[in-house]
Amino acid sequence: MRIKVATHSGFCFGVKRAINIAEKNLADPRYKNKIYSLGAIIHNPQVVDDLSKKGLKVIKDISSAKKGAVIISSHGAPIETIEKIKAMGLKLIDASCPFVKYAHDIVKRLKREGYRVLIIGDKKHPEVKALLSLAGKGGNKAKIGVVSQTTQNKGNYIKEVLDILKEDFKEVRVFNTICNDTSRRQTLARRLLKDRDVVIVVGGRNSANTKRLWQICKESGASSFHIETPGELKKSYFRGKSRAGIVSGASTPDSMVKKVAQKIKNLTKEG
Amino acid sequence: MRIKVATHSGFCFGVKRAINIAEKNLADPRYKNKIYSLGAIIHNPQVVDDLSKKGLKVIKDISSAKKGAVIISSHGAPIETIEKIKAMGLKLIDASCPFVKYAHDIVKRLKREGYRVLIIGDKKHPEVKALLSLAGKGGNKAKIGVVSQTTQNKGNYIKEVLDILKEDFKEVRVFNTICNDTSRRQTLARRLLKDRDVVIVVGGRNSANTKRLWQICKESGASSFHIETPGELKKSYFRGKSRAGIVSGASTPDSMVKKVAQKIKNLTKEG
Repeated sequence: MRIKVATHSGFCFGVKRAINIAEKNLADPRYKNKIYSLGAIIHNPQVVDDLSKKGLKVIKDISSAKKGAVIISSHGAPIETIEKIKAMGLKLIDASCPFVKYAHDIVKRLKREGYRVLIIGDKKHPEVKALLSLAGKGGNKAKIGVVSQTTQNKGNYIKEVLDILKEDFKEVRVFNTICNDTSRRQTLARRLLKDRDVVIVVGGRNSANTKRLWQICKESGASSFHIETPGELKKSYFRGKSRAGIVSGASTPDSMVKKVAQKIKNLTKEG
Repeated sequence: MRIKVATHSGFCFGVKRAINIAEKNLADPRYKNKIYSLGAIIHNPQVVDDLSKKGLKVIKDISSAKKGAVIISSHGAPIETIEKIKAMGLKLIDASCPFVKYAHDIVKRLKREGYRVLIIGDKKHPEVKALLSLAGKGGNKAKIGVVSQTTQNKGNYIKEVLDILKEDFKEVRVFNTICNDTSRRQTLARRLLKDRDVVIVVGGRNSANTKRLWQICKESGASSFHIETPGELKKSYFRGKSRAGIVSGASTPDSMVKKVAQKIKNLTKEG
């Protein structure tokens, strides 16, 4: 079996930064056993497990945090949550990705200038929930501002914008808030797919950008499987195949990609 | 032959206004025989002929105007032309359509705010030439402002915008500068076409909005003909047909539409 790994893999800038912020604060004696993360700090269960072992307490609701510090995940948090953390007198540690923050700034500006703001993305994703909290409701129906989830697929984004343009409008202001890392991984996945007969997508099942990479693989018609860990790989995935590819999401550690490659080698060894 | 006329016909607001401005100034003794129009004041040769008989001198180049007043046509004029008229000490009479002026204002604002401005329209049309003169060159390649010729077909406009969105960008700001009159005539033409087997499009051959109406008729698959005057109608247009429709451009007088309807009746009378 020949194996090719997409030339861009490992943590993206925002994920690396969020993990660094978490580790730095976990090492701070002031917050010993008192650091909470509201939901997964990044969408990779294995990395989150590692941080939990170092003392990070992942909570679902902010009221579970009694004292100490709360880390805002790389995806950001709704404005109401931020206000609640402050009102509770907790220390706020912001690990939101700067590219996500850039989208926040655009939404705030559009809102201030009277635009009706539309967010294109998965409405259940924490990033989108945060953006929606800033966008609010109302605004001028004829003046529309459009922002994308940072891990969106550009083709899908344009399709949604097209539907908006078909309606009555005076002005539609479209921002490309898809981050470069997302675009690059998608481009490289498409390139890799060209000569692969089976593709393994490695990353959190809760990771939006990983899911989009898998969607791209499926749309290409290639045989493809989404896994989080090498243990999930099955020999049957590679039966009759000779060229495997590995692509990974922005929150997938490089070490995990290497383990997956090794496991594929072992599974497909002749004899 | 049953004949139906599109429920919206006759001069649009901007054309009516330009003709009124011309007639009022032609009646002013101060400018007797000294009123020039730079190109056709509206794109209907028959109406322009009538105004010429009342003393309007249609010129191609501004240097042909010696003294007196120059009327800017309903389509507007390039900024360089306006400056030249002022520099020559001629009186400037601005008959440009307020909806065209609205597009000018948007282009000026976009330019001022550093956008690269793109105009979607016929580059040889006077309205587009004027918009281009304001848009200039340069601007931020990643921040794009898009404006349409006021008489554009919305479907075509969206197609062009889509091509822009497919490129790399940070922000694309799309303004719907297609005037309501244009949209309304196009919608009503489409409605009329549904039960007509032959359609006559009446309007200047140099009229952009009339040409677009004709394009819509042709695309529908209906048998259609573009004429300026009833004299151009041929009996053969109506052979084997029973339901004729008439649509007309924004610069086509109502009287012309009535003459065309009468001529169709005469041509298709039995016996």
